[in-house]
Amino acid sequence: MKTITSLLLLLLSLNALQAQSDEDVQQVDVIFDEVLTNSSAYDWLHYLCKKIGPRVSGSAEGMAAVEYSYNMLDTLGLDRVWKQPVTVPHWERGEVERAKIVASKTLGDVELAVCALGFSAPTPQYGITAEVIEVEDMDALENLGSSEVKGKIVFLNEPMDATLTNTFHAYGRAVSQRTSGPRIAAQKGAVATLVRSLTLKEDDVPHSGVTIFRGTTPIPAAGLGIQSAERLSALIAREGSVRVNLELQCQRFEDKESYNVIGEIKGSTYPNEIIVVGGHLDSWDIGEGAHDDGTGCVQAMEVLHLFKRLGIRPKRTIRCVLFANEENGMNGAASYAAYAKGQTNEKHIAAIESDAGGHAPRGFAVDAQADDLKRNYDQIQEWRSLLAPKGAYYMDTRGGSAADISKLKPYGTLLFGFRPDSQRYFDYHHARTDVFEAVHKRELEMGAASMAALVYLIDQYGKK
Amino acid sequence: MKTITSLLLLLLSLNALQAQSDEDVQQVDVIFDEVLTNSSAYDWLHYLCKKIGPRVSGSAEGMAAVEYSYNMLDTLGLDRVWKQPVTVPHWERGEVERAKIVASKTLGDVELAVCALGFSAPTPQYGITAEVIEVEDMDALENLGSSEVKGKIVFLNEPMDATLTNTFHAYGRAVSQRTSGPRIAAQKGAVATLVRSLTLKEDDVPHSGVTIFRGTTPIPAAGLGIQSAERLSALIAREGSVRVNLELQCQRFEDKESYNVIGEIKGSTYPNEIIVVGGHLDSWDIGEGAHDDGTGCVQAMEVLHLFKRLGIRPKRTIRCVLFANEENGMNGAASYAAYAKGQTNEKHIAAIESDAGGHAPRGFAVDAQADDLKRNYDQIQEWRSLLAPKGAYYMDTRGGSAADISKLKPYGTLLFGFRPDSQRYFDYHHARTDVFEAVHKRELEMGAASMAALVYLIDQYGKK
Repeated sequence: MKTITSLLLLLLSLNALQAQSDEDVQQVDVIFDEVLTNSSAYDWLHYLCKKIGPRVSGSAEGMAAVEYSYNMLDTLGLDRVWKQPVTVPHWERGEVERAKIVASKTLGDVELAVCALGFSAPTPQYGITAEVIEVEDMDALENLGSSEVKGKIVFLNEPMDATLTNTFHAYGRAVSQRTSGPRIAAQKGAVATLVRSLTLKEDDVPHSGVTIFRGTTPIPAAGLGIQSAERLSALIAREGSVRVNLELQCQRFEDKESYNVIGEIKGSTYPNEIIVVGGHLDSWDIGEGAHDDGTGCVQAMEVLHLFKRLGIRPKRTIRCVLFANEENGMNGAASYAAYAKGQTNEKHIAAIESDAGGHAPRGFAVDAQADDLKRNYDQIQEWRSLLAPKGAYYMDTRGGSAADISKLKPYGTLLFGFRPDSQRYFDYHHARTDVFEAVHKRELEMGAASMAALVYLIDQYGKK
Repeated sequence: MKTITSLLLLLLSLNALQAQSDEDVQQVDVIFDEVLTNSSAYDWLHYLCKKIGPRVSGSAEGMAAVEYSYNMLDTLGLDRVWKQPVTVPHWERGEVERAKIVASKTLGDVELAVCALGFSAPTPQYGITAEVIEVEDMDALENLGSSEVKGKIVFLNEPMDATLTNTFHAYGRAVSQRTSGPRIAAQKGAVATLVRSLTLKEDDVPHSGVTIFRGTTPIPAAGLGIQSAERLSALIAREGSVRVNLELQCQRFEDKESYNVIGEIKGSTYPNEIIVVGGHLDSWDIGEGAHDDGTGCVQAMEVLHLFKRLGIRPKRTIRCVLFANEENGMNGAASYAAYAKGQTNEKHIAAIESDAGGHAPRGFAVDAQADDLKRNYDQIQEWRSLLAPKGAYYMDTRGGSAADISKLKPYGTLLFGFRPDSQRYFDYHHARTDVFEAVHKRELEMGAASMAALVYLIDQYGKK
């Protein structure tokens, strides 16, 4: 009897779920229909990429993007739009960046495709010339003695693993050669570093990205195109000793003031429960910062614009945050998290960030403190089932979300990192190829709609 | 007690499934790893697109593609490679295709972007000039009387529905204006037809594709770029009467001989059970037939190549079929189905076709006779669960698979239409933009690996 009662209760609750779901299914449809036919996201992205350009922290373009996005949010009829001051680093690439193999036995001089990594030191004028020591990965570098490294250019040549179908996993495994490799090399006495670009595309476009020296005195560090890396590696294998001349004119200046750009629609019932949706407004200084992360910014803006267009008054406060300085410092995220911690009358129940490109949605990576995750797991899987028919079919709770919002984890926030298809992202990431033309209008909109639908569902059901 | 026994049985069977799955999971991994690191598919596609070019039925390029793919299959160490003769139509576009609005009140003459539809009749030299009558969809055309249509150019202007997230559904709803619109218009006395291109990209690239006149005498019929269609429609709305001059030099000739190109690995245990994997070798005569369907052909070839490279001897016979004449006649599919019907010692247990573009995999559309589908449903969903971690997450049994293999349905074959992400496909479909550069190497390989993994699983478990 007890079993039968339980079964009946289960069936009843399934019925209730069904009724609830039908309305949600309709509303998710309405959201997708509206975004796919009336979104401004693509036009906003065009402006960010083509009229402003790349928006590295500390640059005039970075400030122009702050003004543009602030003004644009201000036209949407939101309840509040503001700028939160953030101190950001100021590093400039300079005019010249070039490298060449010098006087090799079999090929003579050979040009290499390079670009400075963020926070790289400059070389002297006419560059540094030194013998190259190639290491296959970070373990190999760690195992080298200072005597083997001293006075040399360390060449970190670990490729991304092409067999990992999610390219972000391949990036995650190899990225420390860029973020930490130059520091470790500097500590062992290297005079410069060349780092194989983190991409699976077999071209010769060098990729930039931050490298972190912390207490160590910076040395020159450059990303090397894949074909250049292969050429250099083959020559070292053939000739044993190969010398490279590297010239970089990059420079670090005094920190500057920038801003997180924020806009919100106040909740009607629970105004103190905050749902953040965001991307980061800064980019690297080559290309146009289209997929990284212009797309995330315009998608987040579109979520609020959509609620206004559809006349949906949310129960909870929906806040768009365009973070400053994700690329080289995370100071925007830190400033926002400090603000969130300080607001005793606000509870950040959830945050969604799009910072994995503007490609067609695949799902979300969900992170939270263990008890929050457990308590909300079933609810999140139900949201998953509502988004799946639109192509955002997974809610992956195995860890990680997105960089900026991760700082909110200690405050009991459910974190959702938007996960689009990953195959093309690292073709463009931190490279001159990350331009407006690489973004597909409908894919961008499908992502914005997935984010908007998730915000809608979180607003409806809240956090348990 | 009965409940507990059932539960125990369920748990036991789940355990058994688990054991079975672990080996399959590993093998699916091996397949993906190999395709993503050692595939020739992208190079083969390069040859088909750049060295041969578009491969319309009846053309010299079509025959060159037959020879190339036959020779390439012949290098793979298969058990048998052969060509099945297929009679195909021969229609040529000719040198000139152009259209313009003539002497409009407000804009004067305006050039329109057009391309002839397959099987279109030519116009006289210097073209046909006539008043345009715009219809919003096929229903509107059906409702027009002959007196309203006679002597006019019918302009079918139904857009694809942008709110359908699967663009193939939007295509399916609007495609009859191209396939049947010109015939209906001809029957009502129209002198020519302009058909809004079936694309969601807001450019002015005209798209071709077949139009079918059956018993009706063909009239000139051209695809019209989206921007041209919008311009023409706006002008008609403003001026009421608008005249267009259309010139086409296309022509139909005598049928020609072509071939289905076929290669197979004989099964070790059940050689008479056939698993077909295919694409179609013909394309339209503009662009390079990259996504339609060069990608499908090289993916199917890659499946067999992969089995050879990995040294997997299949239990069942795996047969690659590159179909002739999918675009305008389906004669290759008909010839192959007739062959399949005639082979009393062969049973076609399954067929997989890739003819929806070379983008990243999303899943498969499954079709079969009702009892076959029912009997194999659970098995198919289990295969789904093995492919899902690789991004091919659905097995959609709501009808439809792919054009060529659909002819095998009467013979008890399980049909699997490969379904990649659909957002970009109709940007290129039947247009000059369908070129090699529009295909992404890893996405192409991910599709090939999904197909290979499915073939592997079908070979392991067979059809119930």
